[in-house]
Amino acid sequence: MGDLQARIRAFVDERDWSQYHAPRNLLLALVGEVGELVEPFQWRDDEQVTELLADEEGRSAVEAELADVFYYLLRLSDVLDVDLGSALVAKLEQNEHKYPAERARGSSAKYTAYEQ
Amino acid sequence: MGDLQARIRAFVDERDWSQYHAPRNLLLALVGEVGELVEPFQWRDDEQVTELLADEEGRSAVEAELADVFYYLLRLSDVLDVDLGSALVAKLEQNEHKYPAERARGSSAKYTAYEQ
Amino acid sequence: MGDLQARIRAFVDERDWSQYHAPRNLLLALVGEVGELVEPFQWRDDEQVTELLADEEGRSAVEAELADVFYYLLRLSDVLDVDLGSALVAKLEQNEHKYPAERARGSSAKYTAYEQ
Amino acid sequence: MGDLQARIRAFVDERDWSQYHAPRNLLLALVGEVGELVEPFQWRDDEQVTELLADEEGRSAVEAELADVFYYLLRLSDVLDVDLGSALVAKLEQNEHKYPAERARGSSAKYTAYEQ
Repeated sequence: MGDLQARIRAFVDERDWSQYHAPRNLLLALVGEVGELVEPFQWRDDEQVTELLADEEGRSAVEAELADVFYYLLRLSDVLDVDLGSALVAKLEQNEHKYPAERARGSSAKYTAYEQ
Repeated sequence: MGDLQARIRAFVDERDWSQYHAPRNLLLALVGEVGELVEPFQWRDDEQVTELLADEEGRSAVEAELADVFYYLLRLSDVLDVDLGSALVAKLEQNEHKYPAERARGSSAKYTAYEQ
Repeated sequence: MGDLQARIRAFVDERDWSQYHAPRNLLLALVGEVGELVEPFQWRDDEQVTELLADEEGRSAVEAELADVFYYLLRLSDVLDVDLGSALVAKLEQNEHKYPAERARGSSAKYTAYEQ
Repeated sequence: MGDLQARIRAFVDERDWSQYHAPRNLLLALVGEVGELVEPFQWRDDEQVTELLADEEGRSAVEAELADVFYYLLRLSDVLDVDLGSALVAKLEQNEHKYPAERARGSSAKYTAYEQ
């Protein structure tokens, strides 16, 4: 993942685009990409989503949108000097304590509360 | 990154939560987390964002929100059977052709057009 | 709707908060509120959404989130000096031509294309 | 506003599109439109946003995106049987108590806290 971030950094630097990559700009760009990721899913039910993913062109379109979201998430983390992998591991450890497997199993409290 | 996805998968399976992880559910959860990520940035200008990140508590809060977005992005990709790293590399290669460094340098067309 | 905007404007001015309401700030706040609106829907299927709305507390929570999104949409429009009602009417007229009823009826092209 | 909702309802019914307008579908569509609204703002600073809005074509583009967000917000509220105007008034009254003008004035607590 560090490799991916380094590659993005090189891509941006070669084009002299870092001047545009203030954190809030990247955040808005991330929102824009999430908006595009949502589009193939908005009018499809679960079964139609499965069909979309089984279709080569549909799958490619979804992959490209996931990649765009990932691009801005990695770039934003890099600009903020956040190690995204470590942050995720820390969060997982925290959630392993917050929702112990033996109690969470069979409980859907997290999924049925109004507020998560 | 495969390791992170495997760890998330184990976390979810141990809690029997995969029943809640239909793609559209995960997509909405991703949107919810992006909404939380935005909050510390919404009333701050660029300088105040720098101050926020220089503060230990502020940095931790931002890291936790980035981690939550990454969690759902990895999980959604896993459920859709998409290799997120490969998808990003493919997209970067495509963009390296679309925006050749020698022409993109000094041009901000991508950043000044109405539509990206 | 002009009344609602005027009331929001008075609310903001009485608190001297317009200094925080640059368009991009309001846009990020709108994104944050959309994230909150999504939360009650993310782990519920269509039937559970109906149950949520039939419950008084659930309905109140959803109404409050819809109101928050509307607040920032009205405020952003006001700050940008956009007449949101007129903009919507113009868009509806445009769509009435783009999707003539007699042809759109029985066609779901808009809803089954990859890109909308 | 009731008029706008009735007009949208007629537009949808004439095209037999209500079958696609489950709440979660409309919510995802709203997210998609917010993503489009963000795009003209993502690479512009506050001054450039002002220039964008001073340009006729730029202003039209932004108005159209605001209208699209409003369309789905009104339609979602209608499908959920929520009176959006009343919900906003209730929220404003609540906020008038939560942030009394005389205390909120000169205080930016809402705008400087990590979590809003």
